[in-house]
Amino acid sequence: MSSVWAEGSGSVAGRQAALLREFGRVRHLSVAMIDGLTPEDCMIQSMPDASPIKWHLAHLTWFFETFVLEPSLGADHVPFDLAFRVLFNSYYVGVGERHPRAERGLISRPSLERVLAYRQAVDERVAALMGSRALSDAMLDVVELGLHHEHQHQELMLTDLKHHLWKNPMRPVYRDADALLDRGVPAMTFIARPEGVAQIGAGDTGFAFDNERPRHRVWLAPFGIASRTVTCGEYLDFIDDGGYDRPELWLSEGWDFRTREGWRAPLYWEQDPDGRWTQFTLNGMQKLAHDEPMCHVSYFEADAYARWVGARLPTEAEWECAAAALGGDVPGDSHLYDGTHVHPRRADDDAAPHLYGDTWQWTQSAYLPYPGFETAPGAVGEYNGKFMINQMVLRGGSCATPVGHLRASYRNFFPAQTRWQFSGIRLARNA
Amino acid sequence: MSSVWAEGSGSVAGRQAALLREFGRVRHLSVAMIDGLTPEDCMIQSMPDASPIKWHLAHLTWFFETFVLEPSLGADHVPFDLAFRVLFNSYYVGVGERHPRAERGLISRPSLERVLAYRQAVDERVAALMGSRALSDAMLDVVELGLHHEHQHQELMLTDLKHHLWKNPMRPVYRDADALLDRGVPAMTFIARPEGVAQIGAGDTGFAFDNERPRHRVWLAPFGIASRTVTCGEYLDFIDDGGYDRPELWLSEGWDFRTREGWRAPLYWEQDPDGRWTQFTLNGMQKLAHDEPMCHVSYFEADAYARWVGARLPTEAEWECAAAALGGDVPGDSHLYDGTHVHPRRADDDAAPHLYGDTWQWTQSAYLPYPGFETAPGAVGEYNGKFMINQMVLRGGSCATPVGHLRASYRNFFPAQTRWQFSGIRLARNA
Amino acid sequence: MSSVWAEGSGSVAGRQAALLREFGRVRHLSVAMIDGLTPEDCMIQSMPDASPIKWHLAHLTWFFETFVLEPSLGADHVPFDLAFRVLFNSYYVGVGERHPRAERGLISRPSLERVLAYRQAVDERVAALMGSRALSDAMLDVVELGLHHEHQHQELMLTDLKHHLWKNPMRPVYRDADALLDRGVPAMTFIARPEGVAQIGAGDTGFAFDNERPRHRVWLAPFGIASRTVTCGEYLDFIDDGGYDRPELWLSEGWDFRTREGWRAPLYWEQDPDGRWTQFTLNGMQKLAHDEPMCHVSYFEADAYARWVGARLPTEAEWECAAAALGGDVPGDSHLYDGTHVHPRRADDDAAPHLYGDTWQWTQSAYLPYPGFETAPGAVGEYNGKFMINQMVLRGGSCATPVGHLRASYRNFFPAQTRWQFSGIRLARNA
Amino acid sequence: MSSVWAEGSGSVAGRQAALLREFGRVRHLSVAMIDGLTPEDCMIQSMPDASPIKWHLAHLTWFFETFVLEPSLGADHVPFDLAFRVLFNSYYVGVGERHPRAERGLISRPSLERVLAYRQAVDERVAALMGSRALSDAMLDVVELGLHHEHQHQELMLTDLKHHLWKNPMRPVYRDADALLDRGVPAMTFIARPEGVAQIGAGDTGFAFDNERPRHRVWLAPFGIASRTVTCGEYLDFIDDGGYDRPELWLSEGWDFRTREGWRAPLYWEQDPDGRWTQFTLNGMQKLAHDEPMCHVSYFEADAYARWVGARLPTEAEWECAAAALGGDVPGDSHLYDGTHVHPRRADDDAAPHLYGDTWQWTQSAYLPYPGFETAPGAVGEYNGKFMINQMVLRGGSCATPVGHLRASYRNFFPAQTRWQFSGIRLARNA
Repeated sequence: MSSVWAEGSGSVAGRQAALLREFGRVRHLSVAMIDGLTPEDCMIQSMPDASPIKWHLAHLTWFFETFVLEPSLGADHVPFDLAFRVLFNSYYVGVGERHPRAERGLISRPSLERVLAYRQAVDERVAALMGSRALSDAMLDVVELGLHHEHQHQELMLTDLKHHLWKNPMRPVYRDADALLDRGVPAMTFIARPEGVAQIGAGDTGFAFDNERPRHRVWLAPFGIASRTVTCGEYLDFIDDGGYDRPELWLSEGWDFRTREGWRAPLYWEQDPDGRWTQFTLNGMQKLAHDEPMCHVSYFEADAYARWVGARLPTEAEWECAAAALGGDVPGDSHLYDGTHVHPRRADDDAAPHLYGDTWQWTQSAYLPYPGFETAPGAVGEYNGKFMINQMVLRGGSCATPVGHLRASYRNFFPAQTRWQFSGIRLARNA
Repeated sequence: MSSVWAEGSGSVAGRQAALLREFGRVRHLSVAMIDGLTPEDCMIQSMPDASPIKWHLAHLTWFFETFVLEPSLGADHVPFDLAFRVLFNSYYVGVGERHPRAERGLISRPSLERVLAYRQAVDERVAALMGSRALSDAMLDVVELGLHHEHQHQELMLTDLKHHLWKNPMRPVYRDADALLDRGVPAMTFIARPEGVAQIGAGDTGFAFDNERPRHRVWLAPFGIASRTVTCGEYLDFIDDGGYDRPELWLSEGWDFRTREGWRAPLYWEQDPDGRWTQFTLNGMQKLAHDEPMCHVSYFEADAYARWVGARLPTEAEWECAAAALGGDVPGDSHLYDGTHVHPRRADDDAAPHLYGDTWQWTQSAYLPYPGFETAPGAVGEYNGKFMINQMVLRGGSCATPVGHLRASYRNFFPAQTRWQFSGIRLARNA
Repeated sequence: MSSVWAEGSGSVAGRQAALLREFGRVRHLSVAMIDGLTPEDCMIQSMPDASPIKWHLAHLTWFFETFVLEPSLGADHVPFDLAFRVLFNSYYVGVGERHPRAERGLISRPSLERVLAYRQAVDERVAALMGSRALSDAMLDVVELGLHHEHQHQELMLTDLKHHLWKNPMRPVYRDADALLDRGVPAMTFIARPEGVAQIGAGDTGFAFDNERPRHRVWLAPFGIASRTVTCGEYLDFIDDGGYDRPELWLSEGWDFRTREGWRAPLYWEQDPDGRWTQFTLNGMQKLAHDEPMCHVSYFEADAYARWVGARLPTEAEWECAAAALGGDVPGDSHLYDGTHVHPRRADDDAAPHLYGDTWQWTQSAYLPYPGFETAPGAVGEYNGKFMINQMVLRGGSCATPVGHLRASYRNFFPAQTRWQFSGIRLARNA
Repeated sequence: MSSVWAEGSGSVAGRQAALLREFGRVRHLSVAMIDGLTPEDCMIQSMPDASPIKWHLAHLTWFFETFVLEPSLGADHVPFDLAFRVLFNSYYVGVGERHPRAERGLISRPSLERVLAYRQAVDERVAALMGSRALSDAMLDVVELGLHHEHQHQELMLTDLKHHLWKNPMRPVYRDADALLDRGVPAMTFIARPEGVAQIGAGDTGFAFDNERPRHRVWLAPFGIASRTVTCGEYLDFIDDGGYDRPELWLSEGWDFRTREGWRAPLYWEQDPDGRWTQFTLNGMQKLAHDEPMCHVSYFEADAYARWVGARLPTEAEWECAAAALGGDVPGDSHLYDGTHVHPRRADDDAAPHLYGDTWQWTQSAYLPYPGFETAPGAVGEYNGKFMINQMVLRGGSCATPVGHLRASYRNFFPAQTRWQFSGIRLARNA
């Protein structure tokens, strides 16, 4: 959780000041992320699910213009460019028309340069607004939501960029970084957890997305949860054992995807004619490191792997309740995105549980409302609730997640066939 | 629940005798259902999700030949026709190749007549087997599974047939029956249920599908559940209030389906140029009766309706725990399929809760394994587990469900866009 | 050409009498063709391009009811069934709505029995009309068009049925017939034809479709045309030489089809694991006979084969001008459909040019209007002209073409990817 | 026709010198065309049929590197970048692998800057080669082919760019230019042409594409050809008369396209709520000028318009034979692309026949080989022949055609549904 909250809980003025500092930090990071990218790089859209980097940068600014500047300034607000209202709306039906998602990559104008000018103009206006006038608590909530929204898109910028660059047969490198060497990992063990009533979800104070609330009781049967995530080497054993050719291991719909898409390994993995495995990363093509946390698999592959090994995926309630026991500490986790490495890293010591900074972990839970879930009124209320169907929850965080974004109660969610996220596997089993 | 179990629990011999009687009853019903249909009617496949009646009849027989006769008789079993093994396998990968699902309507040979001969031959052999030799408990479990499997397909035969005939612009009638008149329904009330640990799922004894087990604890927050399902008249109010044109009421994916498919009302409803509503039923075209339980909506429509009315759908745990309180009694429910009426009927008295014999009720629960769920080994183990993704649970039962098939713990499941089942709406709300 | 015309040219009364006799012969053949087929067989629609046999039988009757009975009888005509007007209209926009082509296989009702009653009723009324009253010349033209229309559909009934039955993995047999043995074929030679002005197309008298007219002049450069069509054995050489794997032999669009559809041989050919070739025929599965005329290839394959062999396909003008020189005689050609054999037969003697009774022959000519082409007014005018785009002309006739249907000027046409017709290859080359 | 040939016919040395000058002129024009465009503009690919401007620029350079530098320099040729061989090959199967056409818009690297460096490097090497050494006649033929290939792509750059920019809701302007005012057009008359043997196609000398040869005889029936093309105002009459709603005017396949694509007017035309028509042009949004030549219609629309007006489209032989009579003079036609206006212009005087500089004119002829057509051996031979199926010939030239590219024998070709080219209508009729 971001340090904003520690300060912010003291007073409204303190909260506004802290949020303004955080605003500067977060907004700066998005721009820093495109260092070394060209305007052309920032325009690619390699599939409808992914968006151009330029679109992300503009959409994130649109959020602050639409939900902070417009309502705060009213008639005094001069829109930066009226056309941007439609062009950079993502899905907020309440705000009006949207440009078709699959055509975001066709927008050469506004140029990247103009989008950066848009960012700067909106940033200055927000800073002027927040520096000159006390905003209501409700408006500060929106500012804070905007910063967490920006966190989310920062991770998407990296996952989308990875896919964009991968479609280029020249396989461009985003950031130079040394490949890490295999160092060995400790054996995977299962930590036993007792049955009983537990509580999950975010409490009433501090920032959390609407879908993490309310905090509520659940009943857990006894279970065991793995001490770390599955490694590339372990997943290779599954491949070598014919995992991709044994329908009895797969969900029926997963088998259909595997067949239609020709899946033979995680996304970005390649095998050369001599059988050697490499993988495309944002730090260039790399030899597959057996001991690093494996990622870029769909829920279907995660589920099939678990079945193959005689285990299963945890539910999100199991994951959340076990996280504390596993010893993962979110703040200060040095594995989060640092501006250079964008790849899961091997644990530094035997105790590393791989909870937050390497790969997201698929859970066996569908993304549905918690008991008592309520959406906020208005367009901001469209934030999460409207996607609560046909998606599975992932927990934890990845090497592409920015600092300040994670909590144990955080619910990430994607359709079961999704592979372009840094999605890996933590196992569980019945007691 | 079928009466087989009351007897069956006494002794193995008694169980075998009871199952044999039930075998005769259930197998006969499937054939009785095609009275009045021609071989041509029984060959239609109007969409990949639906199967020809002839295919259902053959597949149900294939089940008994493959899972009862083959293992019981071994080398003594002479297959009725070797080609049927591939042709009438539905999805059991463990049994070998399958004929493509979408091409089932192209199979003119074997003829309906030969499929009926296949049924008769297998029925005789099963009867001879069960009459002459004591089967193991495990084999009796398979026989019983086969009968419940046949129940399921009997309901599908009716829902599929409805869709098949509807595609014919002449709108053929399956069974003549009087349309029922509007008689008024009692006001919908919400029955309050307290919070606490509850148990759901089927116990260890008696027949249940694998997905209903094990019985397990859940924690329920306090909630209210509707005393009856939503009527056609109530749903018309939603339509008239622009329910199909207000994206804020819909899940995002639901809105996409509504747009792509042009949904403006439940499936089978039609509005004539003067604004009058009629509906296609297996008993012919009928004037829309305002007071009858509404059905043929997707999960997306059910969810949007609930949001419009300021309520929500129940979870499956809420539904199951509330069923007893609602007073629904499964055995003897006269609303179940009687061979003539295949349409939800209005309650006979004010207390009718519409739990089992009118329409299935969408729940807010995704179809996922219960804690401790285990699949059976072998091909029979493919029964339910492999479909546990991207489907929503429906509870209750419908006017097309045959007698002997239902339990309070029964879990029906379909993708959220499904509309050709008799699927309706029961509301719930937070306390 | 049918003998009707020899008589018909004498007097109107003579023409009407001759047409009535021909009406009886042609209408009877369609019904005779379903001997041995079940109502279920007659309902299959294996792809949108093919129609169920029952639909053909009804549509052909619809033609006479709509274009002969209705205008001749006026208010005295009582429609057999009003619903048939929409159900069995194929594409005549001028006549009103049509049932969707791809859903013809879903029509179980009317039953085959009722369609046969429809045929009989309309046949009796047409016979009564023609026996009792002199029809105008224009109306007799429509009757004659209807008979040739029925000829066309008789061939389609066979090609469609072949595809329908082939989709059944049991591979049903339509007609029992001995497979013919290889007997050797004469060497293929090229007959030289001089340059100059020639005339093609049908003259003003006698029956011909509108697209064969007017007869007109063309200029032909000198060319050579093959003495016979390509055999299965010759085509196997193309396959064995990697013909399906060499893009330089193929039109670009053809290569795309070959790749997308996985073409490795003509439709209906199969190679067993030992390399032996068989083919599915309406007379059952047969060993591939090397000396028989090859068929079931697309234009793309015909064109690639010709390029491989260093030749080309003839234009339709070349074909028509060369037909006389090749010695083919249409009337009395014993290779035409005889009610039993539905497969190309090997020549009985060395001179057999394979012009009319074995396989259609793809030409290099697009299907376009002849100079001076005019469509007839009204719905009948929709007959051919509206399809004059993106189709290639085939000339000759096949083993599935009924007696009385062919002329040297006859233009058959299909999209270049079509393979379910009896379409083969005759080569040509530049002088 | 380019002036190269007047000189070139004298001597090989003279031809080489003239070609080198032309090389400079043509290669410069392609780069001049992107003045005012950003690298982002040059990366858009709005549909698979259109390519990014950057891709065009690179592919045109690839042609000279692959077909001129490589064979001429042999081992001395150092490829500019090995990856470009795959990346910028369009369809030459003989040259090896190609990057998927639909993914050309995903290539951010190489950057536009690097592609321009590629152009410059190859231009310098070609100039050095041609300045230092006498090339063979065959190699000079390839150079000349490369220049005409570049002409073709220059026109595509404009048509593709128009589509790319149109997909941006901000509707960017490529070149500022005044809209032209309506000035009136002379009445359309039909020039009568006699029957007889005529010759069409390119002769043996001078440059022409392979598909224009050999020159050959055709027989023409008497016909009339329109003195000018159809105007926007005339086409509006067709729209206002319900032309888009009358299936009897349309080819069957055309009607399907119209329905599926929702065609209500030519591409780029828009009607505001008050009924006023505007059109998107490369010179910005403009009021529809009634007297200007209409364009951006498919063959299907051109054909339906002709049928509506009681005429037809000319064949390509009719067009070519009539061109001289119509008085169009190719060289010096000031309507060709001048670097600013990219829109059909109204005739300057009554005699303007609109043959070459306004819009391409659909003909009724399918794109097929001329009698005696032979493809060149090797990869260059893939130039035109492999596309000879399912395309219709257009004749003339458009406002986007560069100077030096046209001849009366020129055959342009596109699928019948194509609308993004500057394609208009010239009528013909039977005598």
